[in-house]
Amino acid sequence: MSAAEAAALIPAGANVGMSGFTGSGHPKLVPQALATRIEAEHAAGRPFQVNVWTGASTAPELDGALARVGGMRQRLPFQSDPVCRDRINAGEVDYLDIHLSHVAQQAWFGFLGPLHVAVIEVLGILPDGRLIPSAAVGNNKTWLDIADKVILEVNSLPPAEMEGMHDIYYGTAIPPRRLPINLTQPIERIGEPYLRVDPAKVIAVVPTHHGDRDTAFAQPDAVSNQIAAHIIDFLAHEVKVGRLPRNMLPLQSGVGNVANAVLAGLLDGPFDDLLGFTEVLQDGMLELIKRGKMAAASATAISLSRPALQEFTDNIAFYRERIVLRPQEISNHPELVRRLGVIAMNAMIEADIYGNINSTHLMGSGMMNGIGGSGDFARNGYLSFFVTPSVAKGGAVSCIVPMVSHVDHTEHDTQIIVTEQGLADLRGLSPRQRAQVIIDKCAHPDWRPLLQDYFDRARSQGAQHTPHLLGEALSWHQRCLETGSMRA
Amino acid sequence: MSAAEAAALIPAGANVGMSGFTGSGHPKLVPQALATRIEAEHAAGRPFQVNVWTGASTAPELDGALARVGGMRQRLPFQSDPVCRDRINAGEVDYLDIHLSHVAQQAWFGFLGPLHVAVIEVLGILPDGRLIPSAAVGNNKTWLDIADKVILEVNSLPPAEMEGMHDIYYGTAIPPRRLPINLTQPIERIGEPYLRVDPAKVIAVVPTHHGDRDTAFAQPDAVSNQIAAHIIDFLAHEVKVGRLPRNMLPLQSGVGNVANAVLAGLLDGPFDDLLGFTEVLQDGMLELIKRGKMAAASATAISLSRPALQEFTDNIAFYRERIVLRPQEISNHPELVRRLGVIAMNAMIEADIYGNINSTHLMGSGMMNGIGGSGDFARNGYLSFFVTPSVAKGGAVSCIVPMVSHVDHTEHDTQIIVTEQGLADLRGLSPRQRAQVIIDKCAHPDWRPLLQDYFDRARSQGAQHTPHLLGEALSWHQRCLETGSMRA
Repeated sequence: MSAAEAAALIPAGANVGMSGFTGSGHPKLVPQALATRIEAEHAAGRPFQVNVWTGASTAPELDGALARVGGMRQRLPFQSDPVCRDRINAGEVDYLDIHLSHVAQQAWFGFLGPLHVAVIEVLGILPDGRLIPSAAVGNNKTWLDIADKVILEVNSLPPAEMEGMHDIYYGTAIPPRRLPINLTQPIERIGEPYLRVDPAKVIAVVPTHHGDRDTAFAQPDAVSNQIAAHIIDFLAHEVKVGRLPRNMLPLQSGVGNVANAVLAGLLDGPFDDLLGFTEVLQDGMLELIKRGKMAAASATAISLSRPALQEFTDNIAFYRERIVLRPQEISNHPELVRRLGVIAMNAMIEADIYGNINSTHLMGSGMMNGIGGSGDFARNGYLSFFVTPSVAKGGAVSCIVPMVSHVDHTEHDTQIIVTEQGLADLRGLSPRQRAQVIIDKCAHPDWRPLLQDYFDRARSQGAQHTPHLLGEALSWHQRCLETGSMRA
Repeated sequence: MSAAEAAALIPAGANVGMSGFTGSGHPKLVPQALATRIEAEHAAGRPFQVNVWTGASTAPELDGALARVGGMRQRLPFQSDPVCRDRINAGEVDYLDIHLSHVAQQAWFGFLGPLHVAVIEVLGILPDGRLIPSAAVGNNKTWLDIADKVILEVNSLPPAEMEGMHDIYYGTAIPPRRLPINLTQPIERIGEPYLRVDPAKVIAVVPTHHGDRDTAFAQPDAVSNQIAAHIIDFLAHEVKVGRLPRNMLPLQSGVGNVANAVLAGLLDGPFDDLLGFTEVLQDGMLELIKRGKMAAASATAISLSRPALQEFTDNIAFYRERIVLRPQEISNHPELVRRLGVIAMNAMIEADIYGNINSTHLMGSGMMNGIGGSGDFARNGYLSFFVTPSVAKGGAVSCIVPMVSHVDHTEHDTQIIVTEQGLADLRGLSPRQRAQVIIDKCAHPDWRPLLQDYFDRARSQGAQHTPHLLGEALSWHQRCLETGSMRA
């Protein structure tokens, strides 16, 4: 049926589980048709909102369209859309920012309430009713399993040869009936290539022929390249002293410029036979696979720029042997991240001198995107890097601060902090030792004396495990809110 | 040999891995002999300190003795000794506060440096050299495996019939060679009852006949009983609506009065066939087992009051069938905590209105004890409770604050906050929704209007995802530092 007919089947107030992860594999038409319908309902004076659950971020056709018309009451577990973000920060959308490995189980446990409708993009429907997954698996298995009703968007644009690339694990259960997840290598297959759905629940099938979000790939800038160089030097040193095997351990890489730069740096680095165990496979990892530096990678989604998508499509048989796409519950599972010993690299907004990390909030109150899977990997990985340029806003903001304005990753979970200035290896250090290393290695020279001054004065009074001056710990942020700059 | 002779074998500057977890199973004589030696060295003008690694907290004979003489340079991963705490907060001891499930692997990975000497209490040595573990397993397996030299204290006081109660898992490995840990029920046995040690490394065997720390068991007070009642009501409701099985899921319980009260409440509660999967087995859980309410429990240590220890000793055959003691790497393992669906109950110092938890720091800078295993269980459990009385210091301090002065568990990891005032179920709520529930249910009535005022004013300006007034977010703590009270 048409997207408008399908959207008409979604009731006001429904919890709607949609596909989509990092701009890939989201439904392209039904959310827009739903937004149109909501706009008409609002024009007629009738309230109409839905709660939107996804894998992670989507695209303007989903988050943007529904947020623009005020059609979203609740949103979980991750978003990165500018219109949606504005609605969240205006207090109009209740946003639940959840570890990506926790979402499916919280839904299964009944902690999020019932799922009324699932809207899932697939590449095809087999004669026996099984579904060929799209470019993102995300939470699709769970949404299809638990939803009362299912709407399928069948997208004929992505390469049909992706069939067989997915590994959908059907061995999960609710405690006390859980068993070990028997995956011991990143691209080992432990499930099936297809999604199951009860045909009796399918209330609509909508054909589409639309591309995913156009994920532009920026060439790394100088700052990103410097951060990447510090990381690669460090990894080479860890190999040299025997704390990492020669081909390292499976890599997880967050999204963004710095992640791209690190992966680009690995192209010319001394490491071979690399493996990936990550959330999102982007251009950088595809290039490593193409060039033979990375043997294989596991992810929950593939999100490429236009040229990289062309390369992927043109050589799909090659990539299908080397890439496995899994549910995000598995790609990010603490059990697997710890067992495999993943090397986690994630971006942040700011770090404080004691190693606490803010990944989500601007000046303590405003949501940027969300924690995503960074906690799944940082807590459980073998090594955990958090990276950021040392300053933002043309130098008016230091990304190393006395105290972060929001904590997403605690001092207990941070091992290595990197800026273009340098790398702080925090392993085996107490808070005071960490502070000196972070100030010396990571802070921008313009801000270093101010951080040192804060730390020195904090060390001159009060309890000395984590010396703070609470009266001014957040004053840099407060000043920035008032003047646009952290500078006094 | 004598303890003094053994202590003489520990070099200055050594990393020393000692046994001991929650006042149980620590070496009783060698640390005191070492302290005596250090005192003599200092008197002679010679510097002498060691770095002390344990399972968790120990007793005055270990942490107290070494801290008193200034003999400790570094301490990890947990302590609760008043003398040691003072040294840490004076800035004299570098204290590394580490998730208890992370310690063994960080040592294996080489992140903490070499372990020069292990000092381990055991109950006996078999003819083939294997060791009968004591009342706490902790990190003993790891210390014995990786230490250059080993000193054994053989304690003849604890009941010899504890032999066979332990399950030492030797299946761990360093990535990329890790395999699933095939434990699917709390007291399933996956290892061996004995610790292994290379006899060539054993440089001393010291006989002792000393009891563990005398862990006084206080009868729960009214506040603790109210907190317990809220939790038990909540659990009964979860069973009723089908979100928990009738016998619940395995319980993890932190130490302290509230934990005791909850366990005491379960004695008369509607639940049978309970299971424990916890760090420390204390009087409350022993009583549940004795009375037939709990079928069995897994822990890494058993830490009892004098009367409970008598009961345990008198009926050891009964308890040996129902209690398994494991390495803390296993008792707290994220893989197992998540698989088993543990119900985690942990104490805290304070919570903020958005659900961030401070478990460790007094007024942001001073260390209390440490994070212990609370993060292992809170992040990975099926349900996670954090509990505290709503006020401290006779009402001068609110334990619900606008912003916590230190974050150990983020908003992403907190599900249920409980004070004697009530229970805030935060599952499925956005930050603003959480704030109203926490203020309404958990804050003390004396502090509720002040919290509401902060929240209301924060909602009137700025970004509204997590509304804060950064200029006053920590002012309650600052005032308390200045005046001894959070009151204006």
